[in-house]
Amino acid sequence: MIALSNDIQAIRTQQPLVHNITNFVVMNTTANALLALGASPIMAHAVDELPDLLGIASALVINIGTLDKTWIASFENAMLFAIKRHLPVVIDPVGAGASQFRTNTTLHLLKLAKVTAIRGNASEIIALAQQRVNARGVDSADNSDDAIQSAKNLSKQFHSIVVVSGKTDHCVLNDKVISVEGGSKLMTRITGMGCTASAIMGAFLAVNNNPLEACVNAMTCMKKCGEYAEKNSVGPGSFWTVFLDKLYSI
Amino acid sequence: MIALSNDIQAIRTQQPLVHNITNFVVMNTTANALLALGASPIMAHAVDELPDLLGIASALVINIGTLDKTWIASFENAMLFAIKRHLPVVIDPVGAGASQFRTNTTLHLLKLAKVTAIRGNASEIIALAQQRVNARGVDSADNSDDAIQSAKNLSKQFHSIVVVSGKTDHCVLNDKVISVEGGSKLMTRITGMGCTASAIMGAFLAVNNNPLEACVNAMTCMKKCGEYAEKNSVGPGSFWTVFLDKLYSI
Amino acid sequence: MIALSNDIQAIRTQQPLVHNITNFVVMNTTANALLALGASPIMAHAVDELPDLLGIASALVINIGTLDKTWIASFENAMLFAIKRHLPVVIDPVGAGASQFRTNTTLHLLKLAKVTAIRGNASEIIALAQQRVNARGVDSADNSDDAIQSAKNLSKQFHSIVVVSGKTDHCVLNDKVISVEGGSKLMTRITGMGCTASAIMGAFLAVNNNPLEACVNAMTCMKKCGEYAEKNSVGPGSFWTVFLDKLYSI
Repeated sequence: MIALSNDIQAIRTQQPLVHNITNFVVMNTTANALLALGASPIMAHAVDELPDLLGIASALVINIGTLDKTWIASFENAMLFAIKRHLPVVIDPVGAGASQFRTNTTLHLLKLAKVTAIRGNASEIIALAQQRVNARGVDSADNSDDAIQSAKNLSKQFHSIVVVSGKTDHCVLNDKVISVEGGSKLMTRITGMGCTASAIMGAFLAVNNNPLEACVNAMTCMKKCGEYAEKNSVGPGSFWTVFLDKLYSI
Repeated sequence: MIALSNDIQAIRTQQPLVHNITNFVVMNTTANALLALGASPIMAHAVDELPDLLGIASALVINIGTLDKTWIASFENAMLFAIKRHLPVVIDPVGAGASQFRTNTTLHLLKLAKVTAIRGNASEIIALAQQRVNARGVDSADNSDDAIQSAKNLSKQFHSIVVVSGKTDHCVLNDKVISVEGGSKLMTRITGMGCTASAIMGAFLAVNNNPLEACVNAMTCMKKCGEYAEKNSVGPGSFWTVFLDKLYSI
Repeated sequence: MIALSNDIQAIRTQQPLVHNITNFVVMNTTANALLALGASPIMAHAVDELPDLLGIASALVINIGTLDKTWIASFENAMLFAIKRHLPVVIDPVGAGASQFRTNTTLHLLKLAKVTAIRGNASEIIALAQQRVNARGVDSADNSDDAIQSAKNLSKQFHSIVVVSGKTDHCVLNDKVISVEGGSKLMTRITGMGCTASAIMGAFLAVNNNPLEACVNAMTCMKKCGEYAEKNSVGPGSFWTVFLDKLYSI
């Protein structure tokens, strides 16, 4: 297994371009997380320019956070171009299960093109595996065993890695599960920490040819920076500041 | 009167889902303020999913900050669904008075459905009461007496609480005025502090059945966190960090 | 030459309204930078209200960062209204050269109306001068001499000041070049520092009748705040906090 430090070194050396089509809430923070880590973010969604931009990108991250119909064509086009170029693709199904629209849109995208990894919380992963509406917004209160079983099912169905993040993160490929402990409960009190995990997964996937390792390293990186930030902050405001500083110096 | 501390305790226990349809500038910061306080934000605007999401929400906050025509249908639909479910609704008429478009759009929404509370600065509230264009952007230079009179008129016209925020905040219901002193002048040097006030009003309204009390408690919470942040920061950058930390620990 | 301190004093006294039509990634951070400096930001794009809002603005900043077709009419309308009112106009061609769409859109806007200043990194300025696609996302790896020559050509072609920002910033008007040293390498590890420079150029142009001086002072202000922030921070998270605090106290 390639160590976390090797991947981080590779990110800083190669500065992979990670193309994000993401939600309005986290565009700034996920771009900053990628930059702090050493990668280069592109945040762009116009169908007119996706071929040019994906032509120079090293990974694609699709995040449906502030979904509306006008963005779906961007997701579709970007995914198809990325697949054609054999780029790693991460999808973050924010709020799947909270509305039928989100569950359906995510499943539609998963059927359209094989993605490298799907990252969500337990509610989102369970909703996708069961193709239903079940959740309480974008929060997650479902139990870990259900989530892991759903992740396995989803992984087999779509031939993708499924990462369930929560108190413990589970990186699932078919029946294989690698769990990552740690982190901080403050990570649930800052918007977009899950989106940040998905974004940096794009960077790790760009430099590590073993996708499962890349996902595990990305989640481990999140957990380590979260632990450090908790120890060195007094609330969610200072937590985010310290978290970014740590992503930079890790 | 239910104390501020009771409402905050209730927010932390119930973690009410506050559905925000808000502007691009503050989506991240208002989501973070709600999370720091203990509530759960949803930021979503697609008409396709509003029934699902408002079906699980405990309050709705409409903010017209980066208004364009495509968002008006989302505002309308969300307000009508929320009213149907008897959810508290807050409207933040950002920039009303700075353009006829904003004044008209806000008045249109207020006529469409009875909202629980309208929160704006003096310029915005005066412009709405007088149905005119008068302001200098989203800033406020109008005097307090005019604003309070306008708030009373607006409150009677639309059967809503009107909160005028400024150096002193005034929570107005018909002829009743409850004023809240305190805060910090640095709050005018950080974008979206008014939007933050509107967002957390959604959380307070979700847990306190007395809407006027909820609004007073929300504004008092803003003022207290602002005072604390001013004492513990050296400028607007550190102010926001400390403000979020204090929202978390208050 | 009017000193930086005079311009800053004028910004704090006059609090010029700077109208920004900018990208989703930096709407919050550039609004905060303008507020910290003492200016008043407006972030609005609806064609319906541009005449009202530009009627009270003192400068216009156009930033194409998260470009799509629906925003082009806003850029066009805003520029034409601003020119009619003799307002200073800054254009930030984010990602020009990274896609043909961005290069073409920027050139289209430059041909539509004479702007006061164009600010970009070396890649963007070279791409515009050569009307081609050349870059690696929004990063810049081109050398300084090429960039200065391109800036001179672009300045002559469009009768505008061209600011090339990078390790050293170059403010170019025809064949005149004023270079500004300093800053911090951390400025490349935070999203939107270039966008911040363009935004505050709007504020400086609003208060200083000599546009080249205004641009030089804006870039000097960025460099000084960057140097201070680097000395007083440990990574990009704390850098941005300190940078905003310094913009406020400079």
